[in-house]
Amino acid sequence: MNRLDGMGEDALIARLVGLVPTGAGLEGPGDDCAVADEGGAHLRLLKTDALVEGVHFVRGENARRVGWKAVARVVSDFAVMGGLPERLLATLALPAETELQWVEDVYRGMGDCLKEFGAVMVGGETCRVPQGSAAVISISGTGRVERDSLVTRSGGNAGDGIWVTGTLGGSLRGKHLDFMPRVLQARWLVEHFKPTAMMDLSDGLARDLPRLAGASGCGFVLDRAMIPVTGGHTLEQALEDGEDFELLFTIPESEGFEIGWERIFPGLRLSRIGRLVEFGNGEGMSGGWDHFGT
Amino acid sequence: MNRLDGMGEDALIARLVGLVPTGAGLEGPGDDCAVADEGGAHLRLLKTDALVEGVHFVRGENARRVGWKAVARVVSDFAVMGGLPERLLATLALPAETELQWVEDVYRGMGDCLKEFGAVMVGGETCRVPQGSAAVISISGTGRVERDSLVTRSGGNAGDGIWVTGTLGGSLRGKHLDFMPRVLQARWLVEHFKPTAMMDLSDGLARDLPRLAGASGCGFVLDRAMIPVTGGHTLEQALEDGEDFELLFTIPESEGFEIGWERIFPGLRLSRIGRLVEFGNGEGMSGGWDHFGT
Repeated sequence: MNRLDGMGEDALIARLVGLVPTGAGLEGPGDDCAVADEGGAHLRLLKTDALVEGVHFVRGENARRVGWKAVARVVSDFAVMGGLPERLLATLALPAETELQWVEDVYRGMGDCLKEFGAVMVGGETCRVPQGSAAVISISGTGRVERDSLVTRSGGNAGDGIWVTGTLGGSLRGKHLDFMPRVLQARWLVEHFKPTAMMDLSDGLARDLPRLAGASGCGFVLDRAMIPVTGGHTLEQALEDGEDFELLFTIPESEGFEIGWERIFPGLRLSRIGRLVEFGNGEGMSGGWDHFGT
Repeated sequence: MNRLDGMGEDALIARLVGLVPTGAGLEGPGDDCAVADEGGAHLRLLKTDALVEGVHFVRGENARRVGWKAVARVVSDFAVMGGLPERLLATLALPAETELQWVEDVYRGMGDCLKEFGAVMVGGETCRVPQGSAAVISISGTGRVERDSLVTRSGGNAGDGIWVTGTLGGSLRGKHLDFMPRVLQARWLVEHFKPTAMMDLSDGLARDLPRLAGASGCGFVLDRAMIPVTGGHTLEQALEDGEDFELLFTIPESEGFEIGWERIFPGLRLSRIGRLVEFGNGEGMSGGWDHFGT
């Protein structure tokens, strides 16, 4: 029998998608959010995302940071499509022995992040998991993006430059819990220098860049010397650690883009790490985080 | 320290709601769905709901029925607000040793229910839980209801009759896995004899009726002889077992309502089990299913 730990997460999702009606969304599964066109000036974004105890956080961790992370991950997914979060829902599946204080602090952290980005929590559920089971925090909900501002993973073209924000690697030292979703940066980009493709770096550049290039029908070449490695870490960690939650985007080569960025976001590093090329050319890359990879 | 197993689920939610921004929805947390008014002829419904292995299903169970149940529970929540499901998302948190076949069958069951009610799955996530942890299946998403058709738990008035569909108790023998959400019935009701309040019976009449009466600012009197007990079960089971997923609704006393029902839904029992009374009058009742109750 086939078990999940014998196949990658992407392959698993590809198999499952064929088993349910998926409707005629603008973007299929595989992007950071689903997109629905309901008419009007905005497109609707939908997203679900989960944190698992022992995988995405440990119980001893500051609960308020866990709550921040749970919401911030979803906010980041809306941001990279060019959008903003609107109405979120929370499901907490918890062991009965969980301390009330811990749950309240998770909610406080979720509230911090919701307020930061003008979103609200419209509902939720708490349910019990059997003793000894991991806690699971699932956040889902809707966002919106102006029709002209939508960015997906699939719009990149051969010749586009590949860019990342911030520095990569070493997120487990703390950044993975209290990172700031790159909402302002993503919104500024779509307004001024619209990326052809964008996603956030959640599973590591080594896994996420091939996803973006593949969705765009391109290959890529990477300038490894330009990859912004977090201080005290290695290039391998920058490629593989995951949970950087920085922007990865492609944009036609153009003058002035970096200059505008430096004026608006002087503290946030911006790096051109390579370019998209014709499919079949370019390099291969493997690694990064896979929930069910071998 | 306070632990979750020392407090009820309703009390827990009441504490948590105060810790996050909740916006100005039409209905506050505590109803079956959240309601958002975005203008237009329809109101938006939002819902999240989870199934936990060892609580809502056991691993040996037919996976297709588990998938059906996961979606049907959410469909039922949209139905009792007078609405229909539109776009759902699935999060599956699974041990790595899970069989691929099992996951595919869960998806097939979800697909069966989505097709039955004209809804689609627009996205999802699979992630790993540590070995030995329970699987969690979380379904969330959006539905819609015509502005005039919205029914909540809070609109009941003293003097209204209290009604339930079907029979109660013994759901664990199988019905809890492949119940048919009462979508047609709820839609027929809101169109012809609009209930003043409605919800579905998920935690047992003994827990859910006090919730509905309380939300409506009423008490209730129950005619126990009229409670439709599933064959081979006791009145206590009908009150406490939970997961009946039948409609519980209140409606002003009026002639002809039952006659119309019998013509349209001849096979589905309809029972008037009591009436709402002024708050402070009526009876007390306790029991039913509580995730964190003592």
